[in-house]
Amino acid sequence: MSEQQPVGIGLVGSGFMGRCHANAFRSVSGLFDLPVTPVPVMLADATYELAEQSAHQLGYKRFTGDWTELCHDPDVDIVAVTAPNALHEPIVMEALQAGKAVYCEKPLSTTLESARRMAKAARDANALTLVGFNFLRNPLIAFAKQMVESGELGEIVNFRGRHAENYMCDPSTPHSFRTAIDGGGALADIGSHIISMARYLLGDFAAVSAQCKTIHKDRPVAPGTSELKPVEVDDITNAVISFKSGASGTIEANWAASGRTMDLSFEITGTKGAISFSQERMNELLVTSNDPKRSGFTKIESGPQHYPYGNFCPAPGHHLGFNDLKVIEVAELLQAYAHNSFCQTDFDEAVEVQRIVDAMQQSSREQAVIAI
Amino acid sequence: MSEQQPVGIGLVGSGFMGRCHANAFRSVSGLFDLPVTPVPVMLADATYELAEQSAHQLGYKRFTGDWTELCHDPDVDIVAVTAPNALHEPIVMEALQAGKAVYCEKPLSTTLESARRMAKAARDANALTLVGFNFLRNPLIAFAKQMVESGELGEIVNFRGRHAENYMCDPSTPHSFRTAIDGGGALADIGSHIISMARYLLGDFAAVSAQCKTIHKDRPVAPGTSELKPVEVDDITNAVISFKSGASGTIEANWAASGRTMDLSFEITGTKGAISFSQERMNELLVTSNDPKRSGFTKIESGPQHYPYGNFCPAPGHHLGFNDLKVIEVAELLQAYAHNSFCQTDFDEAVEVQRIVDAMQQSSREQAVIAI
Amino acid sequence: MSEQQPVGIGLVGSGFMGRCHANAFRSVSGLFDLPVTPVPVMLADATYELAEQSAHQLGYKRFTGDWTELCHDPDVDIVAVTAPNALHEPIVMEALQAGKAVYCEKPLSTTLESARRMAKAARDANALTLVGFNFLRNPLIAFAKQMVESGELGEIVNFRGRHAENYMCDPSTPHSFRTAIDGGGALADIGSHIISMARYLLGDFAAVSAQCKTIHKDRPVAPGTSELKPVEVDDITNAVISFKSGASGTIEANWAASGRTMDLSFEITGTKGAISFSQERMNELLVTSNDPKRSGFTKIESGPQHYPYGNFCPAPGHHLGFNDLKVIEVAELLQAYAHNSFCQTDFDEAVEVQRIVDAMQQSSREQAVIAI
Amino acid sequence: MSEQQPVGIGLVGSGFMGRCHANAFRSVSGLFDLPVTPVPVMLADATYELAEQSAHQLGYKRFTGDWTELCHDPDVDIVAVTAPNALHEPIVMEALQAGKAVYCEKPLSTTLESARRMAKAARDANALTLVGFNFLRNPLIAFAKQMVESGELGEIVNFRGRHAENYMCDPSTPHSFRTAIDGGGALADIGSHIISMARYLLGDFAAVSAQCKTIHKDRPVAPGTSELKPVEVDDITNAVISFKSGASGTIEANWAASGRTMDLSFEITGTKGAISFSQERMNELLVTSNDPKRSGFTKIESGPQHYPYGNFCPAPGHHLGFNDLKVIEVAELLQAYAHNSFCQTDFDEAVEVQRIVDAMQQSSREQAVIAI
Ligand SMILES: NC(=O)C1=CN([C@@H]2O[C@H](COP(=O)(O)OP(=O)(O)OC[C@H]3O[C@@H](n4cnc5c(N)ncnc54)[C@H](O)[C@@H]3O)[C@@H](O)[C@H]2O)C=CC1
Ligand SMILES: NC(=O)C1=CN([C@@H]2O[C@H](COP(=O)(O)OP(=O)(O)OC[C@H]3O[C@@H](n4cnc5c(N)ncnc54)[C@H](O)[C@@H]3O)[C@@H](O)[C@H]2O)C=CC1
Ligand SMILES: NC(=O)C1=CN([C@@H]2O[C@H](COP(=O)(O)OP(=O)(O)OC[C@H]3O[C@@H](n4cnc5c(N)ncnc54)[C@H](O)[C@@H]3O)[C@@H](O)[C@H]2O)C=CC1
Ligand SMILES: NC(=O)C1=CN([C@@H]2O[C@H](COP(=O)(O)OP(=O)(O)OC[C@H]3O[C@@H](n4cnc5c(N)ncnc54)[C@H](O)[C@@H]3O)[C@@H](O)[C@H]2O)C=CC1
Repeated sequence: MSEQQPVGIGLVGSGFMGRCHANAFRSVSGLFDLPVTPVPVMLADATYELAEQSAHQLGYKRFTGDWTELCHDPDVDIVAVTAPNALHEPIVMEALQAGKAVYCEKPLSTTLESARRMAKAARDANALTLVGFNFLRNPLIAFAKQMVESGELGEIVNFRGRHAENYMCDPSTPHSFRTAIDGGGALADIGSHIISMARYLLGDFAAVSAQCKTIHKDRPVAPGTSELKPVEVDDITNAVISFKSGASGTIEANWAASGRTMDLSFEITGTKGAISFSQERMNELLVTSNDPKRSGFTKIESGPQHYPYGNFCPAPGHHLGFNDLKVIEVAELLQAYAHNSFCQTDFDEAVEVQRIVDAMQQSSREQAVIAI
Repeated sequence: MSEQQPVGIGLVGSGFMGRCHANAFRSVSGLFDLPVTPVPVMLADATYELAEQSAHQLGYKRFTGDWTELCHDPDVDIVAVTAPNALHEPIVMEALQAGKAVYCEKPLSTTLESARRMAKAARDANALTLVGFNFLRNPLIAFAKQMVESGELGEIVNFRGRHAENYMCDPSTPHSFRTAIDGGGALADIGSHIISMARYLLGDFAAVSAQCKTIHKDRPVAPGTSELKPVEVDDITNAVISFKSGASGTIEANWAASGRTMDLSFEITGTKGAISFSQERMNELLVTSNDPKRSGFTKIESGPQHYPYGNFCPAPGHHLGFNDLKVIEVAELLQAYAHNSFCQTDFDEAVEVQRIVDAMQQSSREQAVIAI
Repeated sequence: MSEQQPVGIGLVGSGFMGRCHANAFRSVSGLFDLPVTPVPVMLADATYELAEQSAHQLGYKRFTGDWTELCHDPDVDIVAVTAPNALHEPIVMEALQAGKAVYCEKPLSTTLESARRMAKAARDANALTLVGFNFLRNPLIAFAKQMVESGELGEIVNFRGRHAENYMCDPSTPHSFRTAIDGGGALADIGSHIISMARYLLGDFAAVSAQCKTIHKDRPVAPGTSELKPVEVDDITNAVISFKSGASGTIEANWAASGRTMDLSFEITGTKGAISFSQERMNELLVTSNDPKRSGFTKIESGPQHYPYGNFCPAPGHHLGFNDLKVIEVAELLQAYAHNSFCQTDFDEAVEVQRIVDAMQQSSREQAVIAI
Repeated sequence: MSEQQPVGIGLVGSGFMGRCHANAFRSVSGLFDLPVTPVPVMLADATYELAEQSAHQLGYKRFTGDWTELCHDPDVDIVAVTAPNALHEPIVMEALQAGKAVYCEKPLSTTLESARRMAKAARDANALTLVGFNFLRNPLIAFAKQMVESGELGEIVNFRGRHAENYMCDPSTPHSFRTAIDGGGALADIGSHIISMARYLLGDFAAVSAQCKTIHKDRPVAPGTSELKPVEVDDITNAVISFKSGASGTIEANWAASGRTMDLSFEITGTKGAISFSQERMNELLVTSNDPKRSGFTKIESGPQHYPYGNFCPAPGHHLGFNDLKVIEVAELLQAYAHNSFCQTDFDEAVEVQRIVDAMQQSSREQAVIAI
């Protein structure tokens, strides 16, 4: 490991995802056989003080309260963007301009136009990009995709998808970047995960018909305040969808889903079999074929036969965790960096996801079926 | 029991549901304390021979190949209609005209107009009617309804419903009354179950936006034939729905759902809690409240605290089966008969269900949101 | 049905099991094609008044407060014994003496000697006998047995069995016949179910090593009393067991199992596969083979391919309930009656079960391994 | 982090567990706020070449084919022992002699005498020790322990424990250190996990009665050979156990458990409630109280309220994985190292576990109940 080519990491933001990125960059070299080694170079946060404290804790020697500095630092090769959504575009644009590879959290941006600008800038800069749709990195999801593509499920006819969590159930949970007027909402925040999953597994969408609802019309402007501000984004979106392949289905994005902490789930129905999955049990995939004798679902547990599970553990049934998905994502990023190739969920893919988010919002506003 | 007032039963049809009705009428008096006793009087089937054989087996002393005879028999008080859908209207009309109470299998009819004619005739005749939406008779469903109505789940904001089975997965499964052009299809056949469930639990619908799809475009005209005929009904319908209460949600009706034998399931999301249920595990109800300390779902097992489970068994956890639901339905019918009252899922209710089926079909044809 | 040979039923007791027997005899002819028809003849209960009331409700025209009268009634062909355990022997002996077939609830008796006397009397009388180990009648259990016998699981090496319920959790639950000093206890009451299951599936036991524990040392003498009496039977028994086949395992009988209402469960481990079952989900059997590619458990749902499920319902996934198991048991009884054959769980089998209960109690007293 | 006191790590072995230790030491500082920072110093393996390759991959600058060198290296503060069981004693003794803290994989040793020698040497050296019973580090297990100790489950009356995996199902799986004659076997290998769990949750054992069985009497001497050697250790052990507290129960250790990859599971029954857990779903704890209205099990999902889950992720339901347990273990080790305190699963605790393993083996040999 020690002699690998070092790759300088610049980390912007050190909250939930910032820490998760830092941990992934730290762990990846011991778990994956990579041609390059990530080196923590600089951390940027909202203020110098925040940056200092996090840098200290996460092992970054240098830090800054100004992400433009980080974007232009010559030792930084990859800029990892984990700041709030509204900052994605300015940071990404700066990083691209400085010739960096960019690893940006989802959703890439808050509007389709913004996402398109970023994707164009990346293409123009010929830059490596990756957007953090980490749930796609589950080895069992790759296995599901293989099953779909192998034809063993027959023709795929239905996709029943959902991303439901409960973190906005409580009306006293205040506004945050997630409820910002242009581009927040359950659909953008977590709907983007299940949409990216649907695209990964079944390909391009053809049309959507959606209904976006705001459950709690007002929320406190900030934690601990009684002052309320109207909410203008959706808490729940339900949609009927269709794919170019001919399959149909539904998608639900719901961040007010009482009792659900991580129900990113789907059932794929084929004419010869089916797959059922929920991130609530991320190490299990339920599969079935229409064998008349034993038609029930079989619970496949993740194991070394599902690459790259074996990089984490040689024995089956030991379970990957959420943070391990981010390690796999980072391994994919570094492999693409080393080989000058590209990542599956790059900015262009993120634009496709955003197009669907956009179309669902439009469908709800216009009460119409929208072609993609 | 022996001294109770006898009520004469005339049973039309003796297939899947006919046998199930016969069993329910036979069992109910030993399990429920009823003011009346059902007496098997006459059985009608498609032919005299079929009727004879079934009557013999199911304990009906008289039988006929002509249901008009049965409808007018003076000893018959209640006509139970378990013939194919297209026969519901003529049989029901005849029975009502003869002044009988009518117990008809779902769906009441194959078109909204037909259902409305039947409901009107019943009102004109002042007749007791019941349509066999038996899944509503599960004691745990009554318990779920109580929870919804008690307000302990807060405001209900979402309903995620589905009825998925796999009996039409196979393209070589031939046409039957279920695929008849006017009114068959997955939506009418099993979608009606989940729609009636949604109405029972959350009340009137406000609007629907649906997509009906035919997976297998042709099926054999009859079992064992190679001659194919086009299928003109849906195999899968997906819909976004909204309720008058303001709740939204989705419904899926799918009879080509590989791996599913009885996924009549729903999740009801309230602002303070949630309920999750699948008929696949009909003796379990998952409930949760947004208690921060223990927010997970609790598996409530059916027991004597859930009326009328205790009529079947004094100990919890012993499980009701599908046929027991029909016994409960028949108990409700006989109680209403004795008390001159009415049943919750009468013809008027069945018309409401049919209106929604109809609106979904229209929505799919016109690619539009349809108000109910 | 009406022309079948009638078989007169005499029912002793009309509590939990009495009602269940009555329901089964009432339903069975419409569900099974039997050469004989059960006819309710007479009901006996502890008093004339109790008997009158129950007879009325359950459709028995004649009744008595004296079971000897019932045993000798010429119209009674089969005596069904659902009285408390301590009465099993006197009633059964009387019935056998009167030349009747005997259908007795489990456990056959409260001591091994008593059970042996009853079995001998039955053999001497050449009488048909059946003991109500109804859980063995689940179609999925027959399917499990087929799997075991077919060899597809390889050599069976382990049996992990349990019958756990919570009905005696509460120390204020009073004494009843179930806690009677000679022969009550969790082991006799519900341990007998899982022992009969183990024998049905894997054959004869070779040795046991058990520990019987009394959790609540005193209980009220009767409901609503504060007067306490010591409990001298076990609340929980744990045992290591071995089979003549060489397999080993454990058995737990526990009627103070908080949170469990019907965990009659087992896992059978073979060298090539395994089966896992719990009565908590009595319509599901989990099976697996050591196929390296898909080694997880497959959930097999009960359906018409599992005889005699199809007698209740032609479609899979509709669920049998507890009472349906008793109907199957009664069908087996009547078939044996008509064909002059015998039942699998006859008195001799019940003696074998009782031998193991006895050996476990002895093992616990003597702190020793006891050979069977 | 950078200014923390460095602690030198010497890693012996780099197989399954060696890699897992290395990963944990690498990750821990970014996830836990520790007063010390682990620094990878030296790696020892069976040969110089193996050590070189692994050191390179895992980020250890120095390496050796001789663990004595590592034990005496002045920069090494903690020796982590992940070599095969038979090497634990010599390596540990050398490390203790050299004044190091020792972090040894389970089982501490292969015989009770050996384990006692090691524990005595550690006490004499006043050394910090930790044995890798990592499953105890699951935040939900700490939560379960709190529930047990809080009294909310009432008196604990039963423990139904199991560790079942399938990695030795196949008779062609060859011998390894796990099947070595003195101290191998399923009981020592994985039984030690469930025994340590039982002790952690319910305290000292009082007596055991066990049966050890060898399923496959011969195995290949090495991978790819046809030469067979007898197996002299158990594949399956079943035991009845009792605790000093008065609770009873069973334990099964089974490495030939077809269909099971990680069924380290238990059910704890108290007089007022119960807990059920399986490592197969390590992020879920099922708990219940004997509340008559809602007596079912509630699925508690791991979240930040269960320390130290929040160190990995601020949001609930995101799942820890197996490797995260090792990170928590290493955090405990480093905290004890920094604060000069001790670890819960130190060598003395490992001796207690080994005593029970030993007693079970003796019980099986002598067919007797053995007091602990
Ligand atoms: N892939 C996934 O599963 C998840 C992705 N996300 C995404 O990650 C992003 C961040 O979300 P969280 O980490 O949950 O938010 P967070 O609020 O926990 O962290 C945001 C971080 O950005 C920093 N920040 C704010 N202003 C800044 C500025 N001007 N310059 C530099 N740093 C600044 C904050 O101080 C904080 O450290 C969002 O885009 C979100 O959608 C979040 C959670 C899960
Ligand atoms: N509530 C529920 O869960 C279910 C309801 N159903 C409903 O029950 C009805 C019957 O369905 P199945 O029993 O499955 O069909 P089936 O095909 O098993 O039985 C239909 C019966 O009607 C008889 N029949 C046909 N023509 C007749 C005539 N001219 N006169 C008298 N009898 C005639 C047939 O001979 C047969 O006995 C349908 O409306 C269906 O939608 C069916 C299954 C489940
Ligand atoms: N197979 C199974 O799953 C089950 C079997 N059982 C067994 O069934 C038997 C009865 O138990 P339960 O029905 O639960 O008890 P229960 O207390 O509900 O009913 C007992 C009945 O026997 C009657 N009885 C008492 N003394 C009598 C006498 N001298 N003559 C006639 N009748 C008399 C009682 O009045 C009552 O009707 C027991 O042997 C029990 O072990 C009970 C429950 C489940
Ligand atoms: N805590 C847990 O959950 C687990 C614990 N273990 C324990 O970890 C230990 C190792 O097991 P695994 O990693 O599975 O075995 P392994 O066979 O994968 O690794 C053993 C390592 O020790 C090395 N080794 C052998 N001889 C050596 C020598 N003379 N000097 C230095 N290194 C030597 C081998 O080359 C190899 O790198 C065992 O004690 C086992 O019981 C194993 C798996 C899981």
